[in-house]
Amino acid sequence: MSEEVKVFGFWSSPFAHRVVLALRLKGVPYEYVEENIFGNKSPLLLQYNPVHKKVPVFLHNGKPIAESLVILEYIDEVWKSNPILPNDPHEKATARFWAKFFDDKCMPAIWKAFWCPDDEREKAVEEACGCLKTLESALNGKRFFGGEEIGFVDIAANFVGFWLRTIQEVTGLELVSAEKFPDLLKWSDEFVKHSVVKESLPPRDKQLEFNRVIVAKYEAGEIKA
Amino acid sequence: MSEEVKVFGFWSSPFAHRVVLALRLKGVPYEYVEENIFGNKSPLLLQYNPVHKKVPVFLHNGKPIAESLVILEYIDEVWKSNPILPNDPHEKATARFWAKFFDDKCMPAIWKAFWCPDDEREKAVEEACGCLKTLESALNGKRFFGGEEIGFVDIAANFVGFWLRTIQEVTGLELVSAEKFPDLLKWSDEFVKHSVVKESLPPRDKQLEFNRVIVAKYEAGEIKA
Repeated sequence: MSEEVKVFGFWSSPFAHRVVLALRLKGVPYEYVEENIFGNKSPLLLQYNPVHKKVPVFLHNGKPIAESLVILEYIDEVWKSNPILPNDPHEKATARFWAKFFDDKCMPAIWKAFWCPDDEREKAVEEACGCLKTLESALNGKRFFGGEEIGFVDIAANFVGFWLRTIQEVTGLELVSAEKFPDLLKWSDEFVKHSVVKESLPPRDKQLEFNRVIVAKYEAGEIKA
Repeated sequence: MSEEVKVFGFWSSPFAHRVVLALRLKGVPYEYVEENIFGNKSPLLLQYNPVHKKVPVFLHNGKPIAESLVILEYIDEVWKSNPILPNDPHEKATARFWAKFFDDKCMPAIWKAFWCPDDEREKAVEEACGCLKTLESALNGKRFFGGEEIGFVDIAANFVGFWLRTIQEVTGLELVSAEKFPDLLKWSDEFVKHSVVKESLPPRDKQLEFNRVIVAKYEAGEIKA
């Protein structure tokens, strides 16, 4: 393989993991570059993503792309095997709609529910649960959002599939449970046990330990929603 | 033409105008349904966009799509003439990146600069100008963001092309000027005088009058950033 395929990520970033997962699902070999998101950003990260200065950055034959959903679209277009977006234009639009809903509404609401001041929590949890209920409706009895296979929305919602449950475990705040969101919980189980997902996720213990560090930072007032 | 192509919009909505403009650039006949965004939402709007309950909604042969950028992608895929996204995958990713930047960063910052409390204005204006500066860099000497023709980013940034300047006129707050953003102002001039854009924009006087109503609502505390 003479072509250059590089991912600049951070091991615990669900957004960087989206890119890694898409490449692995397609069997595209890549080089992974770990960034230190708490320390100094590397000169290459700043060069390739000067607007947001964030991971993930995807580099293909010298050309950089930022924004994880934009990268997923690019990967799906360049490497055709194991498509992650449906071929039908309306189904494709529907997948894009839900991925956008996840990023615009679900992620901020979930994040706020965990890291807001205590006196705002009840309302924040209510809003997050409203978003999760809407997200769950998109499953509509399917195994994955993408149907029988993992697709664009499954990859986009990976935070709910893995990270959310590890944060629930550490904080004790349960947003997704068998009682509240049985279909979403079942999807999450299916997602994390998928062979390609499983082998690319961070080690669970390492993630739990990282969450404890985040909780300590939150309690020290260093992190705010 | 036996196929159903409908746009549910609001005459002054730049987001609805994105959809109308894409259809007109491609010469696709469509039926336009005006929604009253300040009154009761129509049962059809609620049926077709139950998640956000907002315009624009696009309906193609009975199948609804919401979210203006998602609709633009769909239109460009279904009607191939006068493409609005570049064909090259990396150029396409770049266009998607800038449209997303516009929606995620520029629009909220500009909106806040106009409608925030007075004591937050200085900081809000600074942030909006930072975003506009970044947006301007994407022009990079080109006539349009899309090159010689109007493309995805031009359509996405239509608010800066037309609406922003009418709000500047009514509020007296000048974010984009010949001194601060000469390239963006030049682009804006080119954009609004493009024959297809010109014939589909709201009448300028009607828009100015509408802005005055919005300013009055803001001053009465009915609108907050």
